[in-house]
Amino acid sequence: MSRARDVPSLVAKAREGDPRSVARLISLVENGDPALPEVAAAMASHAGRAQVVGLTGAPGVGKSTTTNELVRALRLAGHRVGVLAVDPSSPFTGGAILGDRVRMQEHTADPGVYIRSMSSRGQLGGLSAATPQAVRVLEGAGCDVILVETVGVGQAEVEIASLADTTLVLLAPGMGDAIQAVKAGVLEIADVFVINKADRPGADNTYRDIQGMLALGERAAGDWRPQVVRAVAVKGEGVDDVVAAIGKHREWLESSGELRARQERRAAAEISALALGTLRARIGDLSGGTALASLAARVADGAIDPYAAADELLSGLAGG
Amino acid sequence: MSRARDVPSLVAKAREGDPRSVARLISLVENGDPALPEVAAAMASHAGRAQVVGLTGAPGVGKSTTTNELVRALRLAGHRVGVLAVDPSSPFTGGAILGDRVRMQEHTADPGVYIRSMSSRGQLGGLSAATPQAVRVLEGAGCDVILVETVGVGQAEVEIASLADTTLVLLAPGMGDAIQAVKAGVLEIADVFVINKADRPGADNTYRDIQGMLALGERAAGDWRPQVVRAVAVKGEGVDDVVAAIGKHREWLESSGELRARQERRAAAEISALALGTLRARIGDLSGGTALASLAARVADGAIDPYAAADELLSGLAGG
Repeated sequence: MSRARDVPSLVAKAREGDPRSVARLISLVENGDPALPEVAAAMASHAGRAQVVGLTGAPGVGKSTTTNELVRALRLAGHRVGVLAVDPSSPFTGGAILGDRVRMQEHTADPGVYIRSMSSRGQLGGLSAATPQAVRVLEGAGCDVILVETVGVGQAEVEIASLADTTLVLLAPGMGDAIQAVKAGVLEIADVFVINKADRPGADNTYRDIQGMLALGERAAGDWRPQVVRAVAVKGEGVDDVVAAIGKHREWLESSGELRARQERRAAAEISALALGTLRARIGDLSGGTALASLAARVADGAIDPYAAADELLSGLAGG
Repeated sequence: MSRARDVPSLVAKAREGDPRSVARLISLVENGDPALPEVAAAMASHAGRAQVVGLTGAPGVGKSTTTNELVRALRLAGHRVGVLAVDPSSPFTGGAILGDRVRMQEHTADPGVYIRSMSSRGQLGGLSAATPQAVRVLEGAGCDVILVETVGVGQAEVEIASLADTTLVLLAPGMGDAIQAVKAGVLEIADVFVINKADRPGADNTYRDIQGMLALGERAAGDWRPQVVRAVAVKGEGVDDVVAAIGKHREWLESSGELRARQERRAAAEISALALGTLRARIGDLSGGTALASLAARVADGAIDPYAAADELLSGLAGG
């Protein structure tokens, strides 16, 4: 699977949209394969072609259904669509907590849609390292909209949202979601709020709560004001409004220069993470892997402190 | 507050047990103060003197009450006790979600107890970086048992538990906790399970579930078998059994050599984190801070890929 000589042909086929080649490339990404630099080099010239749309929200708000309906609407508008369903699972159990993906099956026969679930197993740096690379693969495969759906709310989602051009936060009435959104820090990352299940009691309250919180936020002239859209995804209602809000945000990103700024910020984060990963490996290799262990023993003895030990480790790195 | 010339006198007073000096040193840790290496150097010789006991569990299981009762029992046994209540709050809101600390107030007048809440605000590397250093301060201040209480369950707790010699996982009946424990990965980190509120219906089921799961785990001869203790912390019942289990684990840690192994693993992790933090700062400083930005622009342009950019960044680091 990971033979380096396969990469050029995999990349060529992925660019033609062959779903099996795309799948194999994303598996390389998930497994941290040594051939990844080669994959990245082949994909580089496609950077920035797709709009990356993050989609997050608490369990039960209807993320899968909304994603499915968005895919349908984007396909009707002629887009090629990639979906990454990202699962920040426990570091130990590896247990997937993905939502119901059954409804997605209507799109599996459509060659213009690529759907993939990702977990963080085995990948150094976890999902925050693997997801941008998977996005690049989908971009290279010709997707022009990539939906990144994350489960739950929390720091992992905030990190993953930071790789999106546009972040949708889904809420549902009667879940105390406005407060939850504040607690989880998603208020700061949302470009579009989708109040799903808007035919249920309490939807107006949720709408007012969110608008009220947005009114409190400070914004400079020309800043994006987050949109609030009501939807009933299970009936397909309001989905076109969500697509329109995504398009409007894309226009703002381009006209304000923020699109380029976000792309550069993401690239900088990705480069830093890769460079630090290399440095971490070099530290582990110092003195045949014994440098860190012997310094750790001296700290445990109380002979030196961790800062002095870190300095000594780094002097070894510079000298090697 | 952070004048470097204060550090020697703060450290001297902290060693005498002066609570205000301990508080100021932990504030330096929380704020990532430049004087931290000096603090660490002064504390180094005290390394490994305290038993670090992690205490975690879902909200509502009674962590604060249990901690309070453990402090009381440990004080009666003549120990000096430090408590760090760690709050892995949102990276954005900074909102504290600490439990009820009111009951702790009975100990605030006791000079043999030091209690402190910590949040991750502003600290590079978050709580996983700050907590070990705060532990070292408490160790230097003469605490021989340090309780590290974390809120909720998840990756942050697992990381923080990795700095403990002994990890207590609190459960309560009727919360589906046995399953929750598996999902959150705490089964692998628990040295002692405390089934709190053991006078409630369902306590026997929770006990059996945990024992059943432990029976499934594979253990080599001489490995620690996690203890399961029932308690009603609010009535003080079973607290002596928890203290006994902690003591028994300490004996096993010493006789098996695992205490030293854990201390070295923690020191290695701390040294690595500090060294990587320094390297991260050096990367940021390359070419007056412009190297990363210009590489990021080239990646955004599609001119190079992130791996090639990372290599270029690192070659600049070696040459500088």
